[in-house]
Amino acid sequence: MKQTIAIVGLGLIGGSMALALRGFEDYEIVGVDISQPTLRFAREHQIGDRLCDDVSQVLPEADVVVLALHPKGITDLLSRCRDSFRPGCLVTDVCGVKGAIMEAARLLPDCVDYIGSHPMAGTEFSGITHAFAEMFRDSHYIITPRPQSTPAHIALLERMARHIGCRDVYHTTPEAHDSMIAYTSQMMHIIALSVCDDEQLFACNGFEGNSFRGCTRVAALDVGLWTELLSMNAPALVESLDHLLTHLTAYRETLAGGDTARLAEKLNHSSQRKRQVNLSGPDLLS
Amino acid sequence: MKQTIAIVGLGLIGGSMALALRGFEDYEIVGVDISQPTLRFAREHQIGDRLCDDVSQVLPEADVVVLALHPKGITDLLSRCRDSFRPGCLVTDVCGVKGAIMEAARLLPDCVDYIGSHPMAGTEFSGITHAFAEMFRDSHYIITPRPQSTPAHIALLERMARHIGCRDVYHTTPEAHDSMIAYTSQMMHIIALSVCDDEQLFACNGFEGNSFRGCTRVAALDVGLWTELLSMNAPALVESLDHLLTHLTAYRETLAGGDTARLAEKLNHSSQRKRQVNLSGPDLLS
Repeated sequence: MKQTIAIVGLGLIGGSMALALRGFEDYEIVGVDISQPTLRFAREHQIGDRLCDDVSQVLPEADVVVLALHPKGITDLLSRCRDSFRPGCLVTDVCGVKGAIMEAARLLPDCVDYIGSHPMAGTEFSGITHAFAEMFRDSHYIITPRPQSTPAHIALLERMARHIGCRDVYHTTPEAHDSMIAYTSQMMHIIALSVCDDEQLFACNGFEGNSFRGCTRVAALDVGLWTELLSMNAPALVESLDHLLTHLTAYRETLAGGDTARLAEKLNHSSQRKRQVNLSGPDLLS
Repeated sequence: MKQTIAIVGLGLIGGSMALALRGFEDYEIVGVDISQPTLRFAREHQIGDRLCDDVSQVLPEADVVVLALHPKGITDLLSRCRDSFRPGCLVTDVCGVKGAIMEAARLLPDCVDYIGSHPMAGTEFSGITHAFAEMFRDSHYIITPRPQSTPAHIALLERMARHIGCRDVYHTTPEAHDSMIAYTSQMMHIIALSVCDDEQLFACNGFEGNSFRGCTRVAALDVGLWTELLSMNAPALVESLDHLLTHLTAYRETLAGGDTARLAEKLNHSSQRKRQVNLSGPDLLS
């Protein structure tokens, strides 16, 4: 009998994962969502081998469960369905914060192996209609195993990450993840939003290049999702923002002071740092 | 006899323009640079129909001159060669600041038609080895004509912009250009540099996604060029940075205060602004 991977929540990420996991080993992909329009779209676009609108029917039979819901949707489901998971199953998620999720996973019975995941991919769009199989191509896949996680489940999750196209898999702790992501992802969103708050925004059409498009793209975010993500990681994010404000202010003062030699020195310092850090990855902004 | 376009300075932008202008109407493209390795590379890669290392030989015969030098290189050349231009010629540039350049252009004799240009394209690399013909594809091309600029020259510049692949041509004043560019371009560079000043930079490998790559890409800038560009437009840039610091601090305070409803409200406000502004353009970060 085929094993099953249940993907709970067929939004942008869940839908893309259902598409990208197609043909993974001998697993049947079961897509789960409560929205009938979403299930209809999934059916019409062959997203998932099988579809279901009732998570309680799917959990007891699933060998792997991927929770692709908003953070609070994940913690609610873990508490509501804690006894519905199949003993010995692997449960993971795709959530951009890990501390609160891994804390909620402590409610689960010992027979459920919960390993947090965060595929570092996404677009500024939401919902299944924007899902695409190539979303994870060349991205990083971060996992937060627990001490009791089995090597077999860790290996399975790594094979899934490779199958969907990720370039590598990083193991870390929930705390380290949340601290790093405050800087690399959440702060980028606050920057994009703040740039868009500028009164010049609507006048700038025709004057923007790739740097402006690259920086502001993610401002068109899903408000409900990001309210949860940002507020669940506020202390780390505030710390990152304080560093940014310090560094921006230093540039502002140098520019206002008119010290060209000092400006060149600062540009040299920062641009050297950028060149030294190797951030290869997909160049195509989707 | 063929007319000629002289491109003075075969760096990233001048080299790309020489490639992109190939076959433009009946013009011969003459590439000018003082560096022999640059000229050798240009020769080996068919950049320019003809090459020359002496600008004083080229200017008297050129119908169109494109100054693709650093800002100070342009102002120096305008003052040094003011009497070498062919009467009736069109002179333009590709410089990211326009106030200081257009001021220097006032030194020219009346028979020289100087119209400022700023193609909104580029990459984080420098030099002719990174030049490519597609650089300007779908970008904006901004021009700053003077009251005495002839309609024929403006039309010629617009045809050149279309030929190299630009999606549209915007006419503006040097002051409006510099104020807008402080926000859309120069501030994006200061943001990227400041993000790279963060002590977490070297630890973040594996945790970065497209938002981080998109925001920080331009930090790997040409220090000499950007010292000039930023310091020549410091007042407008400082004003833009002050707005940014205000908006970032507002987000920082909301996050630190833990008011989730207020955070959602702010996210909604900023993301709506982003959705309302139409910033279509090339998605491929080169």
